[in-house]
Amino acid sequence: MRKTIVEMLKRAGNDFISGESIAGELGISRTAVWKHIQKLRDSGYEIISQERHGYKLKDAPDLLLPGEVQIGLDTQIIGKDMDYYPSVDSTNRAAKALAYHGARNGTIVVAEEQTGGKGRLEREFFSPRVKGIWFSVILRPNFLPKDAPKCTLMAAVAVAEAMRRFNLKAEIKWPNDIMHGGRKLVGILTEMNCEIGKISYLVIGVGINVNIRRDEFPDALQPIATSLKELNGGKDIPRVQFFRAVLEEFDKLYRQVSAEGFGMVFELWRRYNVTLGQNVRVISAGDGESFSGRAVDLDEDGALVVETAGGRRTVYAGDVSIRHG
Amino acid sequence: MRKTIVEMLKRAGNDFISGESIAGELGISRTAVWKHIQKLRDSGYEIISQERHGYKLKDAPDLLLPGEVQIGLDTQIIGKDMDYYPSVDSTNRAAKALAYHGARNGTIVVAEEQTGGKGRLEREFFSPRVKGIWFSVILRPNFLPKDAPKCTLMAAVAVAEAMRRFNLKAEIKWPNDIMHGGRKLVGILTEMNCEIGKISYLVIGVGINVNIRRDEFPDALQPIATSLKELNGGKDIPRVQFFRAVLEEFDKLYRQVSAEGFGMVFELWRRYNVTLGQNVRVISAGDGESFSGRAVDLDEDGALVVETAGGRRTVYAGDVSIRHG
Repeated sequence: MRKTIVEMLKRAGNDFISGESIAGELGISRTAVWKHIQKLRDSGYEIISQERHGYKLKDAPDLLLPGEVQIGLDTQIIGKDMDYYPSVDSTNRAAKALAYHGARNGTIVVAEEQTGGKGRLEREFFSPRVKGIWFSVILRPNFLPKDAPKCTLMAAVAVAEAMRRFNLKAEIKWPNDIMHGGRKLVGILTEMNCEIGKISYLVIGVGINVNIRRDEFPDALQPIATSLKELNGGKDIPRVQFFRAVLEEFDKLYRQVSAEGFGMVFELWRRYNVTLGQNVRVISAGDGESFSGRAVDLDEDGALVVETAGGRRTVYAGDVSIRHG
Repeated sequence: MRKTIVEMLKRAGNDFISGESIAGELGISRTAVWKHIQKLRDSGYEIISQERHGYKLKDAPDLLLPGEVQIGLDTQIIGKDMDYYPSVDSTNRAAKALAYHGARNGTIVVAEEQTGGKGRLEREFFSPRVKGIWFSVILRPNFLPKDAPKCTLMAAVAVAEAMRRFNLKAEIKWPNDIMHGGRKLVGILTEMNCEIGKISYLVIGVGINVNIRRDEFPDALQPIATSLKELNGGKDIPRVQFFRAVLEEFDKLYRQVSAEGFGMVFELWRRYNVTLGQNVRVISAGDGESFSGRAVDLDEDGALVVETAGGRRTVYAGDVSIRHG
């Protein structure tokens, strides 16, 4: 109902549209229309009302409101249910709570701001208000827990494909970062709840630096972070459209993976990745051991194969820095 | 304080011990003693009180009370914290809630009865009152998520080693059952919460059929289940002592695994297992595909290697039935 009202307001453009005509078209009372308008205002729409003229949309806001994102969203699984927060501690935390209470496959949690956003290993993740896309996807896949790490690669490829639609070049660094010119654009954090042999749910958190100017990053991040806006010659990227593109690419890949496995994800990942062929320094998760070598391949589990002086080593999780020169 | 009172009552054996002498030894008032006695009664101790005589323990109950189990428990990590329920829906469910709220490594949840006990894949698990040991262990290990399935093997070996202390022979069936003569004695359910590269927590649920007579099993289970009591020629097994033995063996193995990896677990597992060398029928978790072959080995991840007509196949999770004749 509210979606229809928003569509009517948008069609009217700069003109007012009367409560009566909205009421007539929807077959509801003018009081009911007024109540819907209030709800829309509560969720972020700026709607002007004028006696005898009716209602007018002041701004189609570039907010990631479900009503905005879902209009024309071409997906089958991802984003059919969407939870929206103006501000939340962490979308992954909120998504895990939803998943625990039974949220269905493909449910999205999105926020304009995270006050306690987290990357891997409890690291802070900078997530300022309306400058990025901070979201989490709940998946209940049919594949095995051991395949979960590949979902990080899948999410990275989905964002890279969305960037391609906007003529922006993505560089994926193993396993979970999208970079440009050595600076980080996107971080991904995959969490899992499972028993042996069966995933209960996956929560894949994605943080995309969209319209953050370089000087808006905290000092410590300025040398290592960048944004789509910077890549785009300083011009803003429309967040709603970009988010839709990410969800559509994600949906396409996820359906393909569910039907045929991770073959296509691996193929696309190889196309975008900037880690293979490089000299890298690795700090392993778990034991914290560090070593250097040349990143030569992905294995079938999505782990990184590194050729060292002492032979080939397989890295399942850890920090990889690319060594230049 | 309460532990000391229980110890004093036990030392007194069949004699009464006066509230005054308990109060004197502990340096507290007689009213305080009386309050502690009430608390002990609430938690399951039957304590007789008689004017002018004092208190007497009617029965050191064979309940799995923390105060009973922890006396003389020789562990460093497992069971230092213990949550006890006369009845609970599922110890794994309770343990996951505790873990979510920060319970420390080695915390135990134990119940006299589960009203909604679960095995793998949401299957029901029969857990009648005071007839078994139904418990869950919370672990926060330093190894990688991909190593979690091996913890099921570790738990199976811990129970098998405890059985050996009681001169009972365990037969471990891959991956998570302990059997005797083809009937199930013990079930294990491992659940995990993790991010890529880091386990947040593992919850390992163990259900041991201790003193269940064959005719006490539901009809459907009678042909496929058995108990330690049946193995023991119909004689009851003291639950508190057996539980202590399991926790001690678990503690020993877990510390070894944390320091040196799963080598010893694999070695002991091979000693107890009845799956390797057998013709088996496998129904894979995930895709549900089934096939037959000979179980020939464990791989380094604890997966079962099966030699089929079409070559070797690796089973990460699923149902394996041993085919005789």
